[in-house]
Amino acid sequence: MNKTYFTPGPTELYPNAKKDLSDALDKKIFSLNHRSIEFMEIFKNTVSSLKTLMNIPENYHVFFLSSATECMDRIIQNCTVKNTFHFANGAFADRFYKTAVELGRNAVKSEVDYGSSFNFDDIKIDNDPEVICITQNETSTGVAIDVQNIYDLKIKYPDSIIAVDIVTSAPYVNIDFSKIDCAFFSVQKGFGLPAGLGVLILNDRCLQKAEKLKSDGIKIGSYHNFISLLENELMYQTTETPNMPGIYLLGKVCEQLNEKGISEIRKETEEKSDMLYNFFNTHRSFTLFVKNTENRSKTIIVIETGSRQVEVKKLLSDNGIIVGSGYGKFKTEQIRIANFPMHKKEDVLKIINTLKHLD
Amino acid sequence: MNKTYFTPGPTELYPNAKKDLSDALDKKIFSLNHRSIEFMEIFKNTVSSLKTLMNIPENYHVFFLSSATECMDRIIQNCTVKNTFHFANGAFADRFYKTAVELGRNAVKSEVDYGSSFNFDDIKIDNDPEVICITQNETSTGVAIDVQNIYDLKIKYPDSIIAVDIVTSAPYVNIDFSKIDCAFFSVQKGFGLPAGLGVLILNDRCLQKAEKLKSDGIKIGSYHNFISLLENELMYQTTETPNMPGIYLLGKVCEQLNEKGISEIRKETEEKSDMLYNFFNTHRSFTLFVKNTENRSKTIIVIETGSRQVEVKKLLSDNGIIVGSGYGKFKTEQIRIANFPMHKKEDVLKIINTLKHLD
Repeated sequence: MNKTYFTPGPTELYPNAKKDLSDALDKKIFSLNHRSIEFMEIFKNTVSSLKTLMNIPENYHVFFLSSATECMDRIIQNCTVKNTFHFANGAFADRFYKTAVELGRNAVKSEVDYGSSFNFDDIKIDNDPEVICITQNETSTGVAIDVQNIYDLKIKYPDSIIAVDIVTSAPYVNIDFSKIDCAFFSVQKGFGLPAGLGVLILNDRCLQKAEKLKSDGIKIGSYHNFISLLENELMYQTTETPNMPGIYLLGKVCEQLNEKGISEIRKETEEKSDMLYNFFNTHRSFTLFVKNTENRSKTIIVIETGSRQVEVKKLLSDNGIIVGSGYGKFKTEQIRIANFPMHKKEDVLKIINTLKHLD
Repeated sequence: MNKTYFTPGPTELYPNAKKDLSDALDKKIFSLNHRSIEFMEIFKNTVSSLKTLMNIPENYHVFFLSSATECMDRIIQNCTVKNTFHFANGAFADRFYKTAVELGRNAVKSEVDYGSSFNFDDIKIDNDPEVICITQNETSTGVAIDVQNIYDLKIKYPDSIIAVDIVTSAPYVNIDFSKIDCAFFSVQKGFGLPAGLGVLILNDRCLQKAEKLKSDGIKIGSYHNFISLLENELMYQTTETPNMPGIYLLGKVCEQLNEKGISEIRKETEEKSDMLYNFFNTHRSFTLFVKNTENRSKTIIVIETGSRQVEVKKLLSDNGIIVGSGYGKFKTEQIRIANFPMHKKEDVLKIINTLKHLD
């Protein structure tokens, strides 16, 4: 039986991915020079379709990197020299923190238990951070942060750059980019593409900071420093030969998602997440990991299965559905179900019907 | 008419790439978790097939990065803190040099005119470099360096790490890895795959240097420092979610090249390069850019067309062959023809037959 992947990513591919890839191969698009007019048009189309889909302001820049992990690295290198602050409520927020530490920054973090969110009123940020890093949707725990809390950070800490991890909430998340400074995602999550492309969206403030650091003699990296990325982006190019299939396919997926319309995608996402949360919340054998309903991610649903995890995963797999395990220390006692645009309502129903008779 | 790309890369894809990709999509390989047993097997197979193909010693490591440019960056970050030395005879050698400068190293280069090679006996390296960087096959000029000259560097400068750019000579180049310390390539050249994967091959000496730097408190980068890459490689994994199609396809291409046998591939490559060099060398309207026959690359053939470049490219294109332009300042007065394993003898003949009647 062909399986459907409800894993947090890599996940089920967008249905058209195979056809899009096949068309591109027939047209020999991946044999083109990455500085050719033809490939510049592809670059331009991808940026433009993504900006339309996610309502990214025209004056924001889009840089193509190789992973979300690389995005974290480049933000720290290009926008900080001393201090960073991190909201740490999961493994990916910790990865951002660890990146800053590895790069020698004075990184301070505010931690909460996995599965919880922050009490933003109580958090004092007093290390004068150049960047405040926040994970809007924690893939490891299924906690989502209300974007209003993120906008408030920008108002409260106007001197800090606000960097937002939207790895597993894009394109669903309705974020006003003008109220943050940069955000990033990778394409193997909500965009349903093969892994290998990270996308960094940023404003001029981030670029100005990179320029300032450079002019102060601070090292901001080599080929993927923001200045080099910008110079190339302005020509619809990348510094190095990039992941051309990734850039091409992202444009195609964005076109198709735009045809459907982001409002419809958001509506469907919420319908499916309601179905899943309602089902697991009332099921006799399961509990939801995120206790506070307001903190529950619409795109990553985490369920405590305890000792029955293997059984649950097997039952679903026997019925053609692959879900993710818990992350890190929760690996054997939780499952994680992704709810991305390519995930169909009928398959969500299949999950529910498969598990509803479980004692 | 469907065109055949003889460009230096991105270039014509390996003939099986489309089928391999299609099979992988049918099997949903790119929906797998990159830490799953299944993907670890793919990783393992790719490394093992590549090691067989290029005769890489078992105790050498293979790291998957996102581009050859990234390989340069990581070598400098992980194997140096002060001094580097660069043999600079083209744009890609200069990129390696520039990377070291951007990362704040005292980079010294020995330059020769583009199209020439070095007189190795005359070059004195006296800046005590931690890494000596050399471009075995310069993609911008078509100059190849005899590997014996590179081995001699390692004997003459035993304290330096010898880092070799084999971007457009792999897999053709017959290099004894035990006589160098690290080498790297990207897959959109001789392996005929879509761009987005860089491959770094290195020995324990490079890793020990990275460990030494780290223990001395030097910053060696975040997620892609050699220590993190090694920890993951030992589990057949990568630090971040990698370019999974790239890793998968590289393994498939290596399997197919191994079936053919590297000796046969080398023999064919040399036959085709002989055909091209003989033809252009005796043609009334063209001259070869690399004057010294010993320095002529077997995989990148650079021809001076002067003012007739547009005409030549158009004539070839009308006959279904796309060749590259010159690089940088030679953009409008040269053509570059790649000669990789996927390039067929019949198409090389077509190039010759198309141009032979040209006045």
